[in-house]
Amino acid sequence: MPSENEIMKQAIALAKKASGNTAPNPLVGAAVVKQGKIIASAYHQKAGTPHAEIHALKKAKQKAKGATLFVTLEPCCHHGKTPPCVEAIIAAGIKNVVVGCKDPNPLVAGKGIRALRKAGITVKVGVLKKECEDLIKDFSHKIKTNLPYVIAKVAVSLDGKIATSTGESKWITNEQTRIFVHEERKKADAIVVGVGTVLADDPRLSIRLGKKEVFKPAVVFDAQLRMPLKSKLYTRKAGQLILCVSENVDLKKTEAARKKGHHLLKCKTLKGQIVVRDALHKLAQLGFQQLFLEGGGRLLSSFLNENCIQELLYCQAPIILGGSGRDVFPNFHPQKLSNALKLMPKWRKSFGDDLVTCYNF
Amino acid sequence: MPSENEIMKQAIALAKKASGNTAPNPLVGAAVVKQGKIIASAYHQKAGTPHAEIHALKKAKQKAKGATLFVTLEPCCHHGKTPPCVEAIIAAGIKNVVVGCKDPNPLVAGKGIRALRKAGITVKVGVLKKECEDLIKDFSHKIKTNLPYVIAKVAVSLDGKIATSTGESKWITNEQTRIFVHEERKKADAIVVGVGTVLADDPRLSIRLGKKEVFKPAVVFDAQLRMPLKSKLYTRKAGQLILCVSENVDLKKTEAARKKGHHLLKCKTLKGQIVVRDALHKLAQLGFQQLFLEGGGRLLSSFLNENCIQELLYCQAPIILGGSGRDVFPNFHPQKLSNALKLMPKWRKSFGDDLVTCYNF
Repeated sequence: MPSENEIMKQAIALAKKASGNTAPNPLVGAAVVKQGKIIASAYHQKAGTPHAEIHALKKAKQKAKGATLFVTLEPCCHHGKTPPCVEAIIAAGIKNVVVGCKDPNPLVAGKGIRALRKAGITVKVGVLKKECEDLIKDFSHKIKTNLPYVIAKVAVSLDGKIATSTGESKWITNEQTRIFVHEERKKADAIVVGVGTVLADDPRLSIRLGKKEVFKPAVVFDAQLRMPLKSKLYTRKAGQLILCVSENVDLKKTEAARKKGHHLLKCKTLKGQIVVRDALHKLAQLGFQQLFLEGGGRLLSSFLNENCIQELLYCQAPIILGGSGRDVFPNFHPQKLSNALKLMPKWRKSFGDDLVTCYNF
Repeated sequence: MPSENEIMKQAIALAKKASGNTAPNPLVGAAVVKQGKIIASAYHQKAGTPHAEIHALKKAKQKAKGATLFVTLEPCCHHGKTPPCVEAIIAAGIKNVVVGCKDPNPLVAGKGIRALRKAGITVKVGVLKKECEDLIKDFSHKIKTNLPYVIAKVAVSLDGKIATSTGESKWITNEQTRIFVHEERKKADAIVVGVGTVLADDPRLSIRLGKKEVFKPAVVFDAQLRMPLKSKLYTRKAGQLILCVSENVDLKKTEAARKKGHHLLKCKTLKGQIVVRDALHKLAQLGFQQLFLEGGGRLLSSFLNENCIQELLYCQAPIILGGSGRDVFPNFHPQKLSNALKLMPKWRKSFGDDLVTCYNF
């Protein structure tokens, strides 16, 4: 007979299957348990489609009656794109509900739990709470700040360089690490780079795992639209490129980009640089909840300066690039040691001789 | 009944007790085993005193007859400062000898093993070979190269900086990491810094573990003797400071240093900087076998440029110091990514949120 933690762990694992596909909704997993056995389980797949609980209850059919429902996130009690889950749970005859964590959405925020209890259902809250909260970190962050959750990825040498003095950066890390990075890209809603990276590397920013090349929207911070029309990102098909440009950008250039079907976000600038918070705010309004920031050093510095990074995916290769190599955060300048940014290691993974650490800010 | 590996592991652990005290001799541990029990064990404590085997045989007394001797390093067969161990082993009536690794010293190099076999003793070679070789890495390196084994220690931020733009570096790493570094300092024969570090930090370079402050010889690379007479290192007592100076250094300054009892090594220079290999060669001749190089960035770069570092003790704190912080290897310049130095991780240890990795070159 699986323990509560084991069942919740399975619900979490299921929820993660939809990583990168649910925005602006959170990842949610659910399981229906009767006589100590999981009789049905499901996860939320995409915004606008049924929530995890509804999928699981449908799978359980009549057997849901008298059963226990496990769900990683508090069931909703409001009419969104889909009817409230609480009503469905009551209607299905569920006896007990085990919830991972409360919904940070003020439209729910404990109301779902209260509604279930009011209907005579026993509700337990907080099983694998931390893990369940981590599952919806982007969703929670956006509710609190109106900004997307930003994961910055850097590939650095032991001396903190991301390229040689001539800009050579292919590749700092090994193949295993790069495959891992592609898996992480997949979990985000969009991949973000600065125009400097486009000019230097002309990246595809696609997800290359196995034979198929998968595309996520790419966001380029390019105040003056310096991006070459021939660059791989510019030639992407309509809807797959978002350009964060200055409010005073050349109109001919924006017209051309619009004709190509690219999305243009006119953003505030300061000293010629896009104000990161303004761009992020606009990206959040478009529904982006988790961004994967890949550089270069100047854009990373801007994000740091505006305190807009939530996680750092720090991929370190055991190489030394030397003092003339390019810094990972060249334009970030805490003058005193006491002002240095202090991060917290969340997890580490070795890939051959490379080491990947995820840091929280 | 302990296995061969377990007994050898104990001999290795014993050997390590003398870390930092045996130069120019290697670390060696030994155990006498009879009927599956360790009846005596010992280690080499200091050059000029008996070898590990002799200590162990003396402890075992008459019981050594017919017993098995475990020794991490091939017993010597030549007359050095002490008589050959092989003779003592034969005289004690030892029946079997288990050797960790061969002696890289051309005066021994298998001859010890052959002499034992010739005397009818069964000899097994290579039990925990790698670990036993690692125990004498400095000794082997010096025999091969006539240079001391150099362990460079760096305390860096995530962006590879060792200080802020104003030179502030106290402290990058946490207290636990710094205690660990003091333990590692203790294992070396001397601690090496550049004059820049003396001018910036005025370090004591002592070993501060518990109440007692212990001093190892300090080596300062100071071509023009710019070191302040009031600096903590300069005011050390006679014999505890070695100054690597240029051949054309001001004679008044060297006279003053000599009067203070400091050791002066006149070294070749290139563009005003001391030629590292020349200084190391001279330090090896003085008997130094393992050096602990602590910076700063310019001296670390010089050692890198001359390929004179064998191990990097890379202490990384989860902080970001920014682009104007001081680089760890500012004057090392591989132009292409293919010329970047590639290191191999040997082990890792976490100290709170800090991570210490030992890399081999």
